Amino acid sequence: MGGNSFGTLFCVTTWGESHGEALGVVIDGCPPQMELSEEDIQKELDQRRPGQGKESSPRKERDRVQILSGVFGGKTTGTPISLLIRNEDVDSSPYEEWKEVFRPGQADFTYQAKYGIRDYRGGGRASARETVGRVAAGAVAKRILRKEKVEIIGYTVELGGIRAEKIDYSEIQRNVLRCPDRNAAIAMEKKIEEVKLQGDSLGGIVEVLVRGCPPGLGEPVFDKLEADLAKALMSIGAVRGVEVGAGFRVAHMLGSQCNDPIGPKGFEKNDAGGILGGISNGADIVLRVAVKPIPSISLEQRTVDLAMRPVSIKIKGRHDVSAIPRINFVCEAMVAIVLADHLLRQKALDSSSRQ
Amino acid sequence: MGGNSFGTLFCVTTWGESHGEALGVVIDGCPPQMELSEEDIQKELDQRRPGQGKESSPRKERDRVQILSGVFGGKTTGTPISLLIRNEDVDSSPYEEWKEVFRPGQADFTYQAKYGIRDYRGGGRASARETVGRVAAGAVAKRILRKEKVEIIGYTVELGGIRAEKIDYSEIQRNVLRCPDRNAAIAMEKKIEEVKLQGDSLGGIVEVLVRGCPPGLGEPVFDKLEADLAKALMSIGAVRGVEVGAGFRVAHMLGSQCNDPIGPKGFEKNDAGGILGGISNGADIVLRVAVKPIPSISLEQRTVDLAMRPVSIKIKGRHDVSAIPRINFVCEAMVAIVLADHLLRQKALDSSSRQ
Amino acid sequence: MGGNSFGTLFCVTTWGESHGEALGVVIDGCPPQMELSEEDIQKELDQRRPGQGKESSPRKERDRVQILSGVFGGKTTGTPISLLIRNEDVDSSPYEEWKEVFRPGQADFTYQAKYGIRDYRGGGRASARETVGRVAAGAVAKRILRKEKVEIIGYTVELGGIRAEKIDYSEIQRNVLRCPDRNAAIAMEKKIEEVKLQGDSLGGIVEVLVRGCPPGLGEPVFDKLEADLAKALMSIGAVRGVEVGAGFRVAHMLGSQCNDPIGPKGFEKNDAGGILGGISNGADIVLRVAVKPIPSISLEQRTVDLAMRPVSIKIKGRHDVSAIPRINFVCEAMVAIVLADHLLRQKALDSSSRQ
Amino acid sequence: MGGNSFGTLFCVTTWGESHGEALGVVIDGCPPQMELSEEDIQKELDQRRPGQGKESSPRKERDRVQILSGVFGGKTTGTPISLLIRNEDVDSSPYEEWKEVFRPGQADFTYQAKYGIRDYRGGGRASARETVGRVAAGAVAKRILRKEKVEIIGYTVELGGIRAEKIDYSEIQRNVLRCPDRNAAIAMEKKIEEVKLQGDSLGGIVEVLVRGCPPGLGEPVFDKLEADLAKALMSIGAVRGVEVGAGFRVAHMLGSQCNDPIGPKGFEKNDAGGILGGISNGADIVLRVAVKPIPSISLEQRTVDLAMRPVSIKIKGRHDVSAIPRINFVCEAMVAIVLADHLLRQKALDSSSRQ
Repeated sequence: MGGNSFGTLFCVTTWGESHGEALGVVIDGCPPQMELSEEDIQKELDQRRPGQGKESSPRKERDRVQILSGVFGGKTTGTPISLLIRNEDVDSSPYEEWKEVFRPGQADFTYQAKYGIRDYRGGGRASARETVGRVAAGAVAKRILRKEKVEIIGYTVELGGIRAEKIDYSEIQRNVLRCPDRNAAIAMEKKIEEVKLQGDSLGGIVEVLVRGCPPGLGEPVFDKLEADLAKALMSIGAVRGVEVGAGFRVAHMLGSQCNDPIGPKGFEKNDAGGILGGISNGADIVLRVAVKPIPSISLEQRTVDLAMRPVSIKIKGRHDVSAIPRINFVCEAMVAIVLADHLLRQKALDSSSRQ
Repeated sequence: MGGNSFGTLFCVTTWGESHGEALGVVIDGCPPQMELSEEDIQKELDQRRPGQGKESSPRKERDRVQILSGVFGGKTTGTPISLLIRNEDVDSSPYEEWKEVFRPGQADFTYQAKYGIRDYRGGGRASARETVGRVAAGAVAKRILRKEKVEIIGYTVELGGIRAEKIDYSEIQRNVLRCPDRNAAIAMEKKIEEVKLQGDSLGGIVEVLVRGCPPGLGEPVFDKLEADLAKALMSIGAVRGVEVGAGFRVAHMLGSQCNDPIGPKGFEKNDAGGILGGISNGADIVLRVAVKPIPSISLEQRTVDLAMRPVSIKIKGRHDVSAIPRINFVCEAMVAIVLADHLLRQKALDSSSRQ
Repeated sequence: MGGNSFGTLFCVTTWGESHGEALGVVIDGCPPQMELSEEDIQKELDQRRPGQGKESSPRKERDRVQILSGVFGGKTTGTPISLLIRNEDVDSSPYEEWKEVFRPGQADFTYQAKYGIRDYRGGGRASARETVGRVAAGAVAKRILRKEKVEIIGYTVELGGIRAEKIDYSEIQRNVLRCPDRNAAIAMEKKIEEVKLQGDSLGGIVEVLVRGCPPGLGEPVFDKLEADLAKALMSIGAVRGVEVGAGFRVAHMLGSQCNDPIGPKGFEKNDAGGILGGISNGADIVLRVAVKPIPSISLEQRTVDLAMRPVSIKIKGRHDVSAIPRINFVCEAMVAIVLADHLLRQKALDSSSRQ
Repeated sequence: MGGNSFGTLFCVTTWGESHGEALGVVIDGCPPQMELSEEDIQKELDQRRPGQGKESSPRKERDRVQILSGVFGGKTTGTPISLLIRNEDVDSSPYEEWKEVFRPGQADFTYQAKYGIRDYRGGGRASARETVGRVAAGAVAKRILRKEKVEIIGYTVELGGIRAEKIDYSEIQRNVLRCPDRNAAIAMEKKIEEVKLQGDSLGGIVEVLVRGCPPGLGEPVFDKLEADLAKALMSIGAVRGVEVGAGFRVAHMLGSQCNDPIGPKGFEKNDAGGILGGISNGADIVLRVAVKPIPSISLEQRTVDLAMRPVSIKIKGRHDVSAIPRINFVCEAMVAIVLADHLLRQKALDSSSRQ
């Protein structure tokens, strides 16, 4: 198993390289009789498409998704749903340059070490383009969750050292960076412009909020809900850290501060981030991920070639300055996939323990 | 699948409750012909045993491990290794009090929500005692790794707001808190004494360092090495955040700062924490986890009973002030299990691609 | 993964060697709130115990099962159920003889080829004693099925060339061979006596009938119900063939004979054996397995030693003449495990597609 | 998990419906650096194509396979291989008739029972057309096996009650029925013509021979080599029985007849069919499967509609008289997938136990 599948009952398998024929995903375990159209999925794909904000790459992918199986008469049938996105507007020639050079911060060196062979065109399988399959599968997962009134929203709480000082959810859709603080969003955009001129790139922090998650989701030992969420989010290329609820702040909290008191109406605060003992407690689930700066920068960098001889490189072309805001949708998708899976697992348990 | 198994080729299944008959683990997929004795495993268990440092709980578990299968004539046979640890010195009577009350910060509420039934004695399956099986399996994983010269060390870099300002590895074994900074260790111990008197508890940060990991481990998409490590670590009860390499610091780094230049002798710095594109790059792997304060505190807390009626509770008895330092060994064990698994996966790939 | 686990939602992991400390099984995924006692399981184990019929081996295993986890106050809690059976009355000395010799028809040669090491005492992991864990897990699976009124019965339809000419279910419990034809049972017993005197052994055919299985169980492609049943049954050491419904008879049937007409009350005959397109159809499920003769015979046999030098051997001691009837209970257990798993899978699907 | 994936290290996921847009398979875990072209796979697909022999259906599928990912510069890269076959020449109108009727011997009734919805066009996912993905994946598995000199051949040993009396391997390629007995092949063809005129269909038996399989493949308990092979073969729609080596003949053998003596050069006969204790022993692996008659016949049949009202039907159009010989290639493919998987598993074990 090459690690391209994810999930137990709602199981997603992605495939495809950045500059190959196509990319796609097979979803095995989607419940039958659920309405699903290409438009449902396309909407999610359009959001993560590059070339929208100023901060994004200019490649004009049309990213038209096709449903090839598992849907009949507009409804899922219970059989695997195969989704295909053709690669268009692909010019691999700029990548000939990196055929024998390991770009810093990229997977070039490690793919070569692992496989002894590597599709160097556009980063191959290691490209952020791989996430198109995740977002497509996430769209299907979101439909399952919507039936249960579970809602997922990802937004930018930090970019280039600028922090959102307040969380105004209505603001998120209003700015291209999906930042819930209008003033911070403006400062972030300015910072992006500045860094773009320098040929450099920026990291940040994305927060994902889940509203309406029923209590009981998650398995108590290895498949704790936060464990599966951490894996899901850490499996996104640019992510270097994941935290739930108070996260790293717990390090300097007292137990009396960290414990959430429970009242007749539920938890009275939410430092647990909606998960206790690996199982959702009915409160909002709150996750944060650290996103590293895009490694493709036009500044000069020291590296080596296949023979480990030193070379100095500059990566031409226009690249995104930050994986944010596009990565927000990938985070949402991965969280949706985990929750849909655990929802189905809990339904199995519930219905089998019912007398 | 109730989520009590972990790993693909080196697969670990734990079982057991805090106050049940016994706890244990079954390891399926351990290579044959490897020397293994009860002493090898016992040594690791003795380290995590409570009642050693001043900060630890006084329960005198002897935690004698027995190998019940999979070893013959002192060597592994390739068949499943079953390890058993009997529960001794168990008095469940203090827990009768919590039969109908949800302790804040514990899994009481969520287990009830999930299963509609709960073994309330000593926290049942949600107890930190569950980790005894993980540490036992980790001891076996460490033996596999040792053959490949891979070494794992967990240590305390923050406790109760006090940070280790330097990393002196030789110091780790010298103080009971496993802190690599002697002065910080002293301050931490003082803090523990202070907070113990208040009836409160403390959180902190553990760092895990892996030396000697060969390049090539990890699968490139969902089973990225850092993704499986994040899941493994986040599946430990008290952990609320995981980061690799520069971790959350990447949020305010520039690409030119974050990328590690490569020279003829390898990576020239290690902000990637030894993993690029989900695959180990041969540098040290560096992980950090946020550990929340022990939720069992003797201060008064507000909560509810099974009928959601408000009650006020104080948890008597002597409890650990912090999951640190014991959790260090659990972190080491989980990292060892992930690395042993990915090492075997990579060996399968290597030997099949060899001509 | 060494292949010692079985099942997706109801997942069983067995461990243990014939002459090791103990054998056991961990069941992960059993629904909570189900009554379960050691007696429930012991009853099933007592049935498969040797030393009952004339045809059985004289080893007096007491086979006392212990529930070590997952049950609290007489009810399952949803956490893993660990079952342990200690090995008693074990004398490994007769097996010193086979340390360096490959007994024909046994797994001696292949374990050595696979692992380069082998626990030769009592056949090690390859012993029929390994099935004690399967039967214990099967007892738990049967409890799940009983709630749904699903009943499983295994019986002997052929032994030593003697065939049951009629199926009288009431007769099965009345004779030790579990043969549904009284006259055939008598002839079989005679045959056993005869062959025992010759120092030889006998094969036969076991049929397993499942009554009350609801329609809808089984997944349509690789995890077809008959596919998982075939794997489950073929994974029992002595089994060399598996068929469902008309089985190998379909080879000389016409389509018009083989198809089962459907009427307003359901299927009008049952050559499909209760499964169509991999999914149960509500009719009785009928399976048959071919059981090879016990390979341990006291007649002289030609074989080789570890160095592949020819030797001639006689296996002393008293062995069963046939794996039948004991294997009936192992077949029942494996069928129960498959059905419990698919029942839970179908409940997950059902409850998620319900509006 | 809807059961559309198969394999542990070499993992195959198929998708697609008979009259959908396309069918395909994703292969995760194929070793890197292996030469692979569309022609390699096309050759295998062409063999199973209908419309070749007199006994086959006239639908003119071109079945052009496309490699969409995982291959770069003619070599596998270690990333998932996605294979796509577009559906062409599809006319679904004849199937409108079966929208509300359950055809006997088909999966119509059970899909409806399971999912409450069903793609009735051409049998949907239950169509034999689903096997195109299996054969494509099998072609890749065969390439892995060829490097190790493992060869798989499937052939017809019985059809319509006519048995091959001898096995002349050179004859298999010479007749369209892949029967190793020339005279039997002629009689079988005659029988097919006869039954076709009657509007009926025929069953038979396929034998699969594996030459050159190294000893050591297979895991000793649930994932015995014959268990995984039985599942793989029984998961093919028309298969109703599977046996290995002497198979059901063991029922009337004595132990002294059934055991294969071992000599200095290996096993002196092969009633075990190449597998002992779940592990390959180096001898030829011999498997046989019972193939039921095609259920689509033009004779009148009694059945019911969705409301369980009795109806009488005749299935028009030209259908195959037998799944044989096409099913031979599906059997070969499934055996190849199992062996490739176990080969990789054994390589992992071998390389990890080597000092």
